[in-house]
Amino acid sequence: MSTPLTPVMTIDEVNSFIDENFPQINDGGRCYFFDNVEPGVAIVRLEPDDRHLRPGETISGPTLFALADFAAYVVILAHIGPVALAVTTSLNINFLRKPTLGPLECRCRIMKLGKRLCVVEADIHPAGGGDSVAHATATYSIPPR
Amino acid sequence: MSTPLTPVMTIDEVNSFIDENFPQINDGGRCYFFDNVEPGVAIVRLEPDDRHLRPGETISGPTLFALADFAAYVVILAHIGPVALAVTTSLNINFLRKPTLGPLECRCRIMKLGKRLCVVEADIHPAGGGDSVAHATATYSIPPR
Amino acid sequence: MSTPLTPVMTIDEVNSFIDENFPQINDGGRCYFFDNVEPGVAIVRLEPDDRHLRPGETISGPTLFALADFAAYVVILAHIGPVALAVTTSLNINFLRKPTLGPLECRCRIMKLGKRLCVVEADIHPAGGGDSVAHATATYSIPPR
Amino acid sequence: MSTPLTPVMTIDEVNSFIDENFPQINDGGRCYFFDNVEPGVAIVRLEPDDRHLRPGETISGPTLFALADFAAYVVILAHIGPVALAVTTSLNINFLRKPTLGPLECRCRIMKLGKRLCVVEADIHPAGGGDSVAHATATYSIPPR
Repeated sequence: MSTPLTPVMTIDEVNSFIDENFPQINDGGRCYFFDNVEPGVAIVRLEPDDRHLRPGETISGPTLFALADFAAYVVILAHIGPVALAVTTSLNINFLRKPTLGPLECRCRIMKLGKRLCVVEADIHPAGGGDSVAHATATYSIPPR
Repeated sequence: MSTPLTPVMTIDEVNSFIDENFPQINDGGRCYFFDNVEPGVAIVRLEPDDRHLRPGETISGPTLFALADFAAYVVILAHIGPVALAVTTSLNINFLRKPTLGPLECRCRIMKLGKRLCVVEADIHPAGGGDSVAHATATYSIPPR
Repeated sequence: MSTPLTPVMTIDEVNSFIDENFPQINDGGRCYFFDNVEPGVAIVRLEPDDRHLRPGETISGPTLFALADFAAYVVILAHIGPVALAVTTSLNINFLRKPTLGPLECRCRIMKLGKRLCVVEADIHPAGGGDSVAHATATYSIPPR
Repeated sequence: MSTPLTPVMTIDEVNSFIDENFPQINDGGRCYFFDNVEPGVAIVRLEPDDRHLRPGETISGPTLFALADFAAYVVILAHIGPVALAVTTSLNINFLRKPTLGPLECRCRIMKLGKRLCVVEADIHPAGGGDSVAHATATYSIPPR
């Protein structure tokens, strides 16, 4: 539960900002897609390719970490704007189930947006629905504005 | 998101089990109340008293930890039954807001119930509703049955 | 590894500050003892009594959490002084082994002391030596000075 | 503190096993180097290249996560042998300082090696020495042998 938050950037503004400032996130071909924002929440989709796979037809742990971390960055950016860059200070991730191949969706929710710290929850599950494959909570430091 | 789970103990059965096996949890007067279970979820209420307070009229961090840990134990017990005792192997807690005095509710949700490990999410907020004061994820080891 | 830090309070000054400001930590009889500080490190001893026990002759999880959190508070206080009160923002604890009855020692080490955040590592083991029973890392927010 | 452990594989055996079973870890050019093992400890070096960088001349968070996770896998493999594959169940990472460009060393220590779970601590610092840039603790599930 949390007091309602209001995004201050549109999806297009966030995507443009990412493309300009973090082009390397989609190096080797666009794989992250951000097209869904709600108050306090952003959903980022990963369309995995060979870069993200491990033998046994599964998606690697670092790929799931990177998706949670990127989606958390996106939800914070959408709610505080591009004036300040949030920096990850800690992240705790639980790997719940072996992900099958195919698109994953990360639903990221702001649990607290303070002046100096933002705490976010990220749930990763198959894009079409299904049991969560990973769950993370992370803290970001917000530089003085 | 998770596949629906089914409780295997009633609220009364859980409470009797706790009273018999963990009487010390309510030492100094009953403070934990468990009266709400849903598939995969349990809600435990803490009615704090002097034991749980810190100067500045707030509830102590160890009290919030103990509430999350106990509620997690309860939701697992309700879903696996009293045959095996779950043991906390790790717990990550984020303190989000200073709790005001008054009853707190911990909503605990099973994220994964495996044969050997159970991963649980716990959200602590004022009993009447309001912003979360703490959020935890924890892993429990389930002895072989 | 970390750049050497220098304590700014003596052990006696820390103990006096704790006794004045957090007398409730030793409610029911003194159980926490702080008598060892080194650059970046503090060691706090817990002499457990009935309050801290669980059936099966073990020390409870919340007791280990409280010891880690208190020792972290002490090491930060000793290194930044009493002008600002650090507040726990997150804590991750791994329970490694069932503690036997008897005094426990928590060795707490500052991993980073920034202007706004302090990150601490805490290792809990039997006071006489032996395998660790719990290990925690925690982040504290330091109010503007 | 922990009871001494004994590696059961040599460095060469571990490297051969990794090359055969996880060739993709060094896709795009060898970047991970494992040439140091002690009882309970392994040290893995990362020689970063363009893949691992972020604008601002720093090494990305997912790169640090991947290094900690890989080094933890290596230390466990070296101590339990190739008969069973450890799977990451949870990982908590604190980002302490912005890493400068250049080789990083991850020192990974087993805190507990149980029958079913292994808990590991990982410290990442510049290869030549210096303040830690990240610290992680992680839990791995060990399949029945």
